[in-house]
Amino acid sequence: MSRITVTYRIRAPRDALDGIARGLALEQSVELPDAAVTDPFVRADVMGRVASVRPGTTDVHTAVIELAVATTGDDVAQTLNMLFGNSSLHAHVELADVEFPSAFLSRFPGPRFGIEGLRRRLGIPARPLACAALKPQGLPSTRLAALCHALAANGIDVVKDDHGLADQAYAPFEERVTLCQRAVLRAAQETGRTCVYAPSLVGAPRALAQQARFARDAGVGAVLIAPALIGLPAFHELVATLDIPVIAHPAFGGATRIAPPLLVGKLFRWLGADAVIFPNFGGRFAYDAPTCAAIADYARRPWGSYRPILPVPAGGLTVERVAELVAFYGSDVMLLIGGSLLAAPDLPARTRAFADALAAATACATGA
Amino acid sequence: MSRITVTYRIRAPRDALDGIARGLALEQSVELPDAAVTDPFVRADVMGRVASVRPGTTDVHTAVIELAVATTGDDVAQTLNMLFGNSSLHAHVELADVEFPSAFLSRFPGPRFGIEGLRRRLGIPARPLACAALKPQGLPSTRLAALCHALAANGIDVVKDDHGLADQAYAPFEERVTLCQRAVLRAAQETGRTCVYAPSLVGAPRALAQQARFARDAGVGAVLIAPALIGLPAFHELVATLDIPVIAHPAFGGATRIAPPLLVGKLFRWLGADAVIFPNFGGRFAYDAPTCAAIADYARRPWGSYRPILPVPAGGLTVERVAELVAFYGSDVMLLIGGSLLAAPDLPARTRAFADALAAATACATGA
Repeated sequence: MSRITVTYRIRAPRDALDGIARGLALEQSVELPDAAVTDPFVRADVMGRVASVRPGTTDVHTAVIELAVATTGDDVAQTLNMLFGNSSLHAHVELADVEFPSAFLSRFPGPRFGIEGLRRRLGIPARPLACAALKPQGLPSTRLAALCHALAANGIDVVKDDHGLADQAYAPFEERVTLCQRAVLRAAQETGRTCVYAPSLVGAPRALAQQARFARDAGVGAVLIAPALIGLPAFHELVATLDIPVIAHPAFGGATRIAPPLLVGKLFRWLGADAVIFPNFGGRFAYDAPTCAAIADYARRPWGSYRPILPVPAGGLTVERVAELVAFYGSDVMLLIGGSLLAAPDLPARTRAFADALAAATACATGA
Repeated sequence: MSRITVTYRIRAPRDALDGIARGLALEQSVELPDAAVTDPFVRADVMGRVASVRPGTTDVHTAVIELAVATTGDDVAQTLNMLFGNSSLHAHVELADVEFPSAFLSRFPGPRFGIEGLRRRLGIPARPLACAALKPQGLPSTRLAALCHALAANGIDVVKDDHGLADQAYAPFEERVTLCQRAVLRAAQETGRTCVYAPSLVGAPRALAQQARFARDAGVGAVLIAPALIGLPAFHELVATLDIPVIAHPAFGGATRIAPPLLVGKLFRWLGADAVIFPNFGGRFAYDAPTCAAIADYARRPWGSYRPILPVPAGGLTVERVAELVAFYGSDVMLLIGGSLLAAPDLPARTRAFADALAAATACATGA
């Protein structure tokens, strides 16, 4: 009987821990009191079981539950349901980590490109990558495209739509994608270096499929998608239809109830993201350095046959922090600087400073 | 310029409140520092603005932000993105409430059946309704169908799949739906009263569409769907394809840190749910009575042209609480008793006791 090992963090008095752990094992499987489960097959092969509890030094403890793989039906939505369906409604429970057995993992293809595929597409084998964002929303497509060109021409490797750019009247999706893709191609002709434009896909499944088709036909080199926003099952299904790398955005992730490294580093990778954006420490979001290190670790560590994927720290980054962040994350990283480039009085100069800082940090890191 | 009014609950020291509110207005719209937004149209018609802040007596305060309707592109996913995309990543921010302008609401059809449509389908004009669940998962379809028959024959109005029932090997979706639907029809022939069987639809968009078609062809009277699990945009798109009432389940809903009355009572209704299941107070989940009253209020209160929908309290209910809960919720309610019926030594007798208690409570409530 194959089992998924699920770790929950539980805020409760120590003496309640054992009961809460037993309750979780039931809630996340049979959803019945223990005594009401009489069928021998269900008891042995379906009911969740407590593998261990680890009391903490404060009122935050850990419970490890083993859930039967058979309960997932090999479906993404149902797997999430088993991991955290009802228990997400318990304010004292956080989904901390998951270990899937390898036979289960092998039924999901994972990232199709990963770090290596993204690097090949950009022609950059080793150094850290530079990413910037098109915003604010409200600008017409022509101005977003001009911005896209300026960023691409001055050393950015990946220019992505702000995740707030959707299919709004002031910059309709198809018009924006056409103009921005044209802008990166023009910049490439001028500079001789590749820049990928990644439009943001957002909507219900039918709209997403249409946007994906349009983006592919326009020849874009990657796309940006927020899995938590469109729904993780819809994300997984959409990824399978794409033949370009997918950068995942954490919007709507609400990641305090699911531990951020698990959601962003592990689950998004499981579902096929090739790069994951997350709020960097010391920026305008509250993730701390160990959380960011854990996200990067989950994104890149060996995991069955799954390709490593690119961590993309973001959220208030500045050019001044490039060296520090390359030292922290290493070379397999893409730094995303958004607002602070766009707010600069001389955007091209500030953009070149970003690219130069990355090159310098790389030279130091490699001793070149 | 039409605006959506969004209320956030913020945990922070009082003197940080104003800055946090201003930050939210920017984060949830232009995602740039104020000074970097120079375009007059963007400043006037796109940028979020702080309508008010209300300091609390403790460290929990309220900020009301007005977001431009134009930023949503009239799309569900993008609307959620604007309401709580990046800010869901802030541990100190909860999405508390939303007021949509009526022109925006009118672009979304809302519930197609609501309380009235459900009552008409059941032929029960006024009394509270009785709901029970098929579980545990792991039982074969034949045993679930037998259970379904026993519940239907003894006075349950709606028998739903446990939300943990998906398309697992031990009770495949199509086989289960066929047998359970047959069971409620047989019970109806025997008793002369209607019982609706509501199978659980779960999966990625393509699987959901297939399950929905199968369920419709099988003639089921309603379906159960967990919007947060399959993704709210996918839920909205799926509902539009169905011609039977939709009961929404809150699974995975806690993962987003949205106030339960807003998520379950208001947003699920906006997206077309006809009934909403939620954890009742005093059960095995931690929602308190005011939260449950607020969910029921949001489900049933007048809201533009949207039909009122049925609140379905659940989660550890027992027959002994029926009178109390009918007094609390009134007659436009469906009580869902799951485990405590299934754990009873004499299920048919316990089920009849549930139906009788409902009838008695109604008689008291109406003075009949």
